[in-house]
Amino acid sequence: RLDDIDGAKMINKAAEEAGVKINYTIIIDSGLNRFGVQPEKAVDFANSLKELRGLVLKGVSTHPGHVYSAQSHRDLPKYVEDERTAIKKAVDSLKGAGYALEIVSSGSTPTFFGAVTDENINILHPGNYVFNDYIQMSTDIATESECALSVYTTVISHPTEGHYMCDAGSKTFGLDKGAHGNASIKGYGYVKGHPELTVSSLSEEVGKLHVEGSTSLKVGDKLEIIPNHACSSANLTGYLIGCRGDNVERLIKIDLRGNSTSKNVK
Amino acid sequence: RLDDIDGAKMINKAAEEAGVKINYTIIIDSGLNRFGVQPEKAVDFANSLKELRGLVLKGVSTHPGHVYSAQSHRDLPKYVEDERTAIKKAVDSLKGAGYALEIVSSGSTPTFFGAVTDENINILHPGNYVFNDYIQMSTDIATESECALSVYTTVISHPTEGHYMCDAGSKTFGLDKGAHGNASIKGYGYVKGHPELTVSSLSEEVGKLHVEGSTSLKVGDKLEIIPNHACSSANLTGYLIGCRGDNVERLIKIDLRGNSTSKNVK
Repeated sequence: RLDDIDGAKMINKAAEEAGVKINYTIIIDSGLNRFGVQPEKAVDFANSLKELRGLVLKGVSTHPGHVYSAQSHRDLPKYVEDERTAIKKAVDSLKGAGYALEIVSSGSTPTFFGAVTDENINILHPGNYVFNDYIQMSTDIATESECALSVYTTVISHPTEGHYMCDAGSKTFGLDKGAHGNASIKGYGYVKGHPELTVSSLSEEVGKLHVEGSTSLKVGDKLEIIPNHACSSANLTGYLIGCRGDNVERLIKIDLRGNSTSKNVK
Repeated sequence: RLDDIDGAKMINKAAEEAGVKINYTIIIDSGLNRFGVQPEKAVDFANSLKELRGLVLKGVSTHPGHVYSAQSHRDLPKYVEDERTAIKKAVDSLKGAGYALEIVSSGSTPTFFGAVTDENINILHPGNYVFNDYIQMSTDIATESECALSVYTTVISHPTEGHYMCDAGSKTFGLDKGAHGNASIKGYGYVKGHPELTVSSLSEEVGKLHVEGSTSLKVGDKLEIIPNHACSSANLTGYLIGCRGDNVERLIKIDLRGNSTSKNVK
């Protein structure tokens, strides 16, 4: 996926030196304003890469990640529209300029429902749906029972009336929040079966649970907490505990963390 | 370290079953309002644990972590005062009640300069100073050259005029910020040698660098970025690259992550 001429030249040089061709798609900015060329500049960008003989244009791609500033389910269609419109503009202009597009790819979990019927997109890559999380719950994309990843933690202290402490913190949950202004997300996770509890703050190794109203909680209790953002949380552990129903089926090693290639470690 | 009678009873039971004694300190709340009994309740708490024969009181401890809401160096003495006052109250009352205190421990990196001269504290445990970070820089506790941990990242794209993308994101930096309102911390890290750059937002695997004014930055450049919070960042990688001067001396494996005990992984 390319959106930058200098980066493209470096990859092209490496490809030519290695005697290989590298297929690429052009990243289109559909509103996230992160990677991506504007849809109306897709043809110019494709043209500027034409002379790079190590690179082969296969299509376009986008990620409408700005959907994560949606505050409720009814905000979602606007982001789907951004996604479809950006893709259509890029596809139409590139086809008009004579480019063949084998791949038209896009995806995010919250816009999937709308993008799946798009006439241009032929590869969808929503990612979060594998686990879902509290952020997906906040826009009604997932229900509690559709969230597959949760943190299992023990209540270890009840130092004052208003709060309890548990033995999981920012190094387990991450500090991800819903987008600013998303009032559905309170704190750093959703405590299953305890609507009276909010994960109000996190230190690295411990979390603070605030109580609103009354609670049956006591020190020693185990809690299952759905993290705000499963993508980050999944990466913070050395292994996941894979359960089916109430049974532990297997431990799943996590090996895609930064600098986690153990071959480099003496 | 104990602050909860129910937790103490569980530990006591386990100790008695194992036929061992467990030494403990009482956690005192010096203002962080996380763990800890109020200083004036230390004697009551010690008394309530007297009958637990598996537990042996060795002293008191605190962590004045609320210092991380300091906005500048001149705010720090207030937090040192909280730390010293809480410790003094607890120590005086416990000694007055006939308890011998072998350990009086406290510590945080920003309050160390004041706590080190305290007449009661005999064990100091500042932790962040091992690396220091942008949060320490924000209150002039550390200078740039005193920050030992930085993220080495490559500029991978320059999609529009105002920003560049690098190949390190929230899974490398963490999302830790200085306390709310701390105007010294901008973004998610301090880009060494590039005052014109702010790490303005993080996706999991990539970071967005905003430019104010002009920059010589180009795709392919390597950047060294001091993270906001070294404690979290150090934990996000599989290994650190230990350098002395300009030489890589050795790779340091990280093994204290959540669920990182590899003996459990098949």
